[in-house]
Formats: sequence, structure tokens, C-alpha cells
Amino acid sequence: MNAPRFGVNYTPRSGWFHHWLDFDPAEVAADLDVIASLGMDHVRVFPIWPYVQPNRALIRPRALDQLAEVTELAGERGLDVSVDGVQGHLSSFDFLPAWTQTWHRSSIFSDPTVIEGLAAYLEAIAGRLAGLGNFLGMSLGNEVSQFGSTEHPDLHVATPAQAHAWAERMLAACEAGAPGREHHISEYDRAWFSSDHPFTPAMAARLGSATTIHSWVFNGTAARYGNLSEQSVRLAEYLIELGRGWADDPSRPIWLQEIGAPMPPLGADEPVEFLERSLAHALDTERLWGVTWWCSHDVSRDLADFPALEYDLGLIDSAGEVKPTGRAFARAAAAARKSAPAPQPRTTAVVLDVTDEAPGAGYAATGREVCAPGGEFFEAWMRLAIAGGRPTVVLASRVDDGAHLARRGITQVVHPADLG
Amino acid sequence: MNAPRFGVNYTPRSGWFHHWLDFDPAEVAADLDVIASLGMDHVRVFPIWPYVQPNRALIRPRALDQLAEVTELAGERGLDVSVDGVQGHLSSFDFLPAWTQTWHRSSIFSDPTVIEGLAAYLEAIAGRLAGLGNFLGMSLGNEVSQFGSTEHPDLHVATPAQAHAWAERMLAACEAGAPGREHHISEYDRAWFSSDHPFTPAMAARLGSATTIHSWVFNGTAARYGNLSEQSVRLAEYLIELGRGWADDPSRPIWLQEIGAPMPPLGADEPVEFLERSLAHALDTERLWGVTWWCSHDVSRDLADFPALEYDLGLIDSAGEVKPTGRAFARAAAAARKSAPAPQPRTTAVVLDVTDEAPGAGYAATGREVCAPGGEFFEAWMRLAIAGGRPTVVLASRVDDGAHLARRGITQVVHPADLG
Repeated sequence: MNAPRFGVNYTPRSGWFHHWLDFDPAEVAADLDVIASLGMDHVRVFPIWPYVQPNRALIRPRALDQLAEVTELAGERGLDVSVDGVQGHLSSFDFLPAWTQTWHRSSIFSDPTVIEGLAAYLEAIAGRLAGLGNFLGMSLGNEVSQFGSTEHPDLHVATPAQAHAWAERMLAACEAGAPGREHHISEYDRAWFSSDHPFTPAMAARLGSATTIHSWVFNGTAARYGNLSEQSVRLAEYLIELGRGWADDPSRPIWLQEIGAPMPPLGADEPVEFLERSLAHALDTERLWGVTWWCSHDVSRDLADFPALEYDLGLIDSAGEVKPTGRAFARAAAAARKSAPAPQPRTTAVVLDVTDEAPGAGYAATGREVCAPGGEFFEAWMRLAIAGGRPTVVLASRVDDGAHLARRGITQVVHPADLG
Repeated sequence: MNAPRFGVNYTPRSGWFHHWLDFDPAEVAADLDVIASLGMDHVRVFPIWPYVQPNRALIRPRALDQLAEVTELAGERGLDVSVDGVQGHLSSFDFLPAWTQTWHRSSIFSDPTVIEGLAAYLEAIAGRLAGLGNFLGMSLGNEVSQFGSTEHPDLHVATPAQAHAWAERMLAACEAGAPGREHHISEYDRAWFSSDHPFTPAMAARLGSATTIHSWVFNGTAARYGNLSEQSVRLAEYLIELGRGWADDPSRPIWLQEIGAPMPPLGADEPVEFLERSLAHALDTERLWGVTWWCSHDVSRDLADFPALEYDLGLIDSAGEVKPTGRAFARAAAAARKSAPAPQPRTTAVVLDVTDEAPGAGYAATGREVCAPGGEFFEAWMRLAIAGGRPTVVLASRVDDGAHLARRGITQVVHPADLG
């Protein structure tokens, strides 16, 4: 396997994602110049759903053309482009079109008319970009499954069966628009950690072209174990192996689609160390498609109401200057490309005993909480990892499946209780 | 007094209000050409709030420039422009920026930070247009008080005191941006009819430069009395006189800011008669600033999810051709300008016995339901009007105020019970 790919989540320097309303190709080109100067090979790009499809029957051609122009500008700089469709959610802000809200309130996951509109939207984007050689494919939407979480203040109801059907329908729409490209679900960690979340680990690990991982230490890891604790800098590694454990296909690639160094909880002097140690662990996993840092550019302090941690996540500041984390990420990318030893298989697997129903069947994957920071499984896996054990994950339902273990190179299985 | 002014609520032919996302001055100019050809003298213009202010701290200069360009294009065609700020609400669709929703959920009427952002928004629009001679002024937002109604699916809580303070703050922001222009609240009929609505009749009739009236027979009038019943074609006249009754200032102008001929409930052959009879009655009221028809252009059938009645409200169809209602409205405007006898004062007033607390005090105006279609007051007033009585309205609290009655030319007061 080649060295993993390195890229960034592209957050436009001017106007954040509202730059779509004042689209200026010269500003995009300037942003991409700096990104390319870091040695990146791809960017993840985020349209805003209601700006592109303000009416269910109006998918604005100009908006599609602007997405194509960003993709072309990226291509001219050696950057491939993956596009998330349904934003949906970005940095605490939610964007839903008027035709799904208030008097038109409908669940985006289960209302047939909305689903039809969404499928048309994703197919239109994929179709507009399909002719561009550097277009990698789509993700359905940045953590769009958040709207199905019971903790969301604007809950869009879905059962696991509905969520599964929705994801399959949306992936099919992407495939219809851009056949043969790599299309994905893009999940946040409730899929792995929360039993009442209708989007299940099995969906995340089995649908689409790769398993996408979003690793954020503000999920309780930093608070519980410390900002630069082994647990914090191994969170991405852990989620990658957790995703691998849920996969059916041992050769399925895993994309660390989001990881960032949020301040707070991190202090001003911690992001570089956090980045370097996190990457070292993440790169010690097999079949890692790539790492996409969140994010390219800081949010300007001229913009209001972002949570404090969202302003300083960029590798590049809001004046366009590369930050220390940007230089560190560029060094890591260069080093990995120069000498990327293929990671050795992980021969020891910690057994995850969570209900593994077929995706969409009933309320699948009860008991996911053991995987969250502080959970029994999380802690056991971390203990072994910190002790140098390089663990992976195997589902309890597969412990006796010798063929499965053999395909993955697993020679030893250990139960969390044995690691207490 | 001069003849009332005639104008239209401008609904862009291409893309409805989403044309702001694909702003094309040539298309706007073509729309305004047809509007001007009907002999109109003004248009009401509607920006979409989240398109203009996507972040609380980002009021897009380009969006303000586009509003100015529309105003200038209108001016070149002899059309004055009044701008509603907070859309807010349009034709069943609601538009609120992400910084007021879900994780950022705040009442637009009572949250201090949102209020600050809203005031800045209105002041910025008014300020950008203040230098244009044909800019009439602002309305706060098209029926934006809907969000404070208990029937709204996304209720933004406000007490009457908060609603009153909000309206005063917003009007002050308009005045700060464009001193001396005519700024208004823009209400829908719950202000007049529903005791639990925090925006009160007193606010509608006493704040801002004029009382604005929105007359829609789908409010139960057509269903109860018939599409072309006297009650239906006198609804605007009734609301105008109701507004006059609540006013403190007998010389305060009244603006019939919205009236339209919705199908359904109207049948295809009814709108012209409805228009002509409604106008004849409305024009028989004193101090009518003007009539602004809803709306200029039909909504294209290419756009989805509008309620059925919203598609055909235009005086001009979605291909740009003037419809029979357009010709009828043009005729009415021409006739009124040619020979506009000043309406005689209405000497008979029906007594409205609804709590008249100071605006903002407690839960003001309990008992408003008598004014709604089917209510005792509504029916009594209509009986007298239909009998040729040309009634106006006087509050019960003023029946013994001889000076008030004299200033208004009222020589006879009758109680609803006397009209039974």
C-alpha cells in the first residue's frame, strides 16, 4: 500500500462557508495556493445545502458551476477534491432549507418528498463534477446524521432501518451522478458510542467506499484523561481500529476524514505536539486511505457566535499565514511520503461485545456506550495500546470465526475484563 | 389628500425570492418594466434575511448593493421602493439564519444578542438606501410577528412588553439608518384577531409612520361568507377601519400593504371581480396612503412545495405576461388618479369593547376574537356596512371622549348588540 494521503478540510479564509454567497475564484485560488504549498494532495469541500437548493425543485446551476470551478482550481494545484453534500452541519451551525422547516417541517431522513429532493441534490452535485479527473467522490454530508441524534435540538426522526435505507438511497444517488467514484457516509462519534443513535457502527463500517473517522478530543477524552494524555493522542488510532473491527471487509480502507487540535481544551502550546503524536499513532494503522486535517484556515475573529474552539483550528491563519501546526502537518506528510513503512498487521484484538444486528434491523448495536471515553472497552483497549500492544478490535460475534481472524492476521484475542 | 398610491409587492419572476442568490439586474429591470407599464408608482421589496446576514457579524455589502441596485432600477422607471427587512416569512416559507437556530436557538424577539444583530441588519439596509430619493423607508419584516404566534411551529417567545420593546428598537434602527423616511411594522391579522398574540392592535396602529393592513380572505372570511360575498370584498375596508379605530392619531395614514385574490378559495373566474369590488370599498376610506397588491409575478410552477394558492397571485404571469387582474388593477389605479373624490368622513362608529391597555402592558387587548370573521364585532360592523352605513370603529374607552369623536367627525356611535 502506498503512503496515506494528506489533505485538509477546506474552510475558506474569507467569509468562512458563506463565501459561497460572494464566490470569488481568485480568493479560492489564493487559499488553495497556500494549501498546496503545504504539500497536500486533496481537500474536502463543503457546499451549503440551502444555498444550492433553496427550493426543492431549484438546484442552482450557478452553485454547481462554482463547485466545479473550485474543483478545477484545486486540480490545477495538484489537489484532488472530495465533496460533502448535505451541510447540514458545520462548526455548530446548522443549515436546512426552508422547504424542510417550520410550516414545511419534515424529517430529512424519513419523509419521502424530502428524500427525493435530497437524492436529486446529491446526484446533481456528483453529476456536475463527474467529468473532472480530480473529483474523488462525495460524502453524504458532514456529520449530517447529527440531525437524527436525540441530543439534537431539531431532531429529525429516523429509526435505524430508516437511517440505513436513507444512507443506501443517498449513496446510490451519488453513484448515479458519478459512477465509480468513492462515496461515503460521514459520521461523528455518536455512531460508535451511543446506543440510541439511529446511524449504527455497522452502517459506518460497511456502507460506502471507506469507513470515515472523525476524531475530536473534545468528546470527553481530553477532559477525562488530559489534553496530551496517551488516550487523547491515540483517540484517532482507537477510532480507526474500532471502525476496522466493525467492518465486514478486512481490506476496506479507512479515512481519517477529520482530526483537529481544538483550543480549548488544548492550550496554546499544545497543538503541535498533539498533532505530531496523534499522527504517529494514526499512521501506524493498516489501510489508512489518508488523513484530512480540520481545517485549512482559521475562522476570522470578525465572524461572531462560533464556539471558542472553532476559531483557531486552521493550519493557516485568517490572514493567510501558515501556522506552526501547518508546518508540522506539512513535515509529517513529507516524511510519510519519503519513507512510509507499511504498518504491520495488528495481531492482538480486543473483543467488543456489542449487539451486532444487521444494519437497519431493529434498534441495532445496543451497548455502544462501552466504546466511549471512560467506557470499559475504551479503557481496556487504551491500556493495551499504551502498554505497546498495538491492539485492533474484533466483534464478539466473530471471535470463533477462524477465517475472519486469519484474514486480518489476528493471532490473539483478549477480553476487556482480562485487561482490567 | 391626493389619490392613494398604487403599487405591487415585487415577487421576482425568475427564481422567486431566491433570485437574490443569482441576482441579475437585467431580469429585475425586465420585471420592473412590466410593473411600471401597469401604471404603478411603488414596489415593496423583500430581501431574505439569512442571505444578507448569514453570520451575525457579516452583513454582506454585495447584498446591500443589490438592494440599492433594485431601488435604482425601480427609480429609473418611476417606482418608489419600500423594503421589508426581516424575511423571515414569505408565502409559507420561513428563513432564519443559522445563528438563531438549533444549537444557537434564541428568540428573535427577546434575546439581547439577536436583537443587537437584527438592529444592525435593519440599520445597514436603511443606511445603504438612505441616499436614494425613491426609497420610501422600511417595514420591519413581512409579517415577522408570526414567529411570536402560539400557532407557529417554531415559536420565538415574546411577551407583549417584549414585542413592543422589540418593535420600538427595530423602528429606531431603521430611523437611525434612514432618518425621516417612513418606517412601519408589518402585521398579519392575528394582531387584530387573537388575544394571545404578543403583537397587539395598539402597536400596529400607533407605532411607525402608518398602520399597515394585510387583507387575506383565506383567513376564514371566504370560507364562512363566500368568495365574492360582501364580507369578503369588504374585508380590506373593515381592517382599514379597525386599524383607524385603534389609532391614537386621527390623521394617521393607513397603508393597505397586502391584498390579493387567492385561488383557492377563489375560482378561476372570480379574481377580477374580487379585485374591483375590494378596491372600490377600500378606496372609500379616508387617509389611505395606498394599495399594494400581492403580488407582481406568479410563482413559476417549476418551483415546488408552495401552497396551491400561492402560485397564481401575480398580476403578471410567470412568463411575464400581464393577466386580467393586472389589467384590472391598472385600470383601477388610472381611474383613481383621474378622478379621486376625497372619501367623506365616516360619521357612524361601531364600538369595539376590547381591553385597551397601553402597548406592552401586561397581556394587552384581551377579547380580540370578536373582531375575527364570525366574531360579534365583525358581524355587526359588516351588517351596518352592507346596509350602506359606511361605519368606522371607535374603542369603547373613547366613546365618551367628545374631542376624539369630533376630530374624527364621528356623530353617532352604535354598539354591536344594537346591530343584532
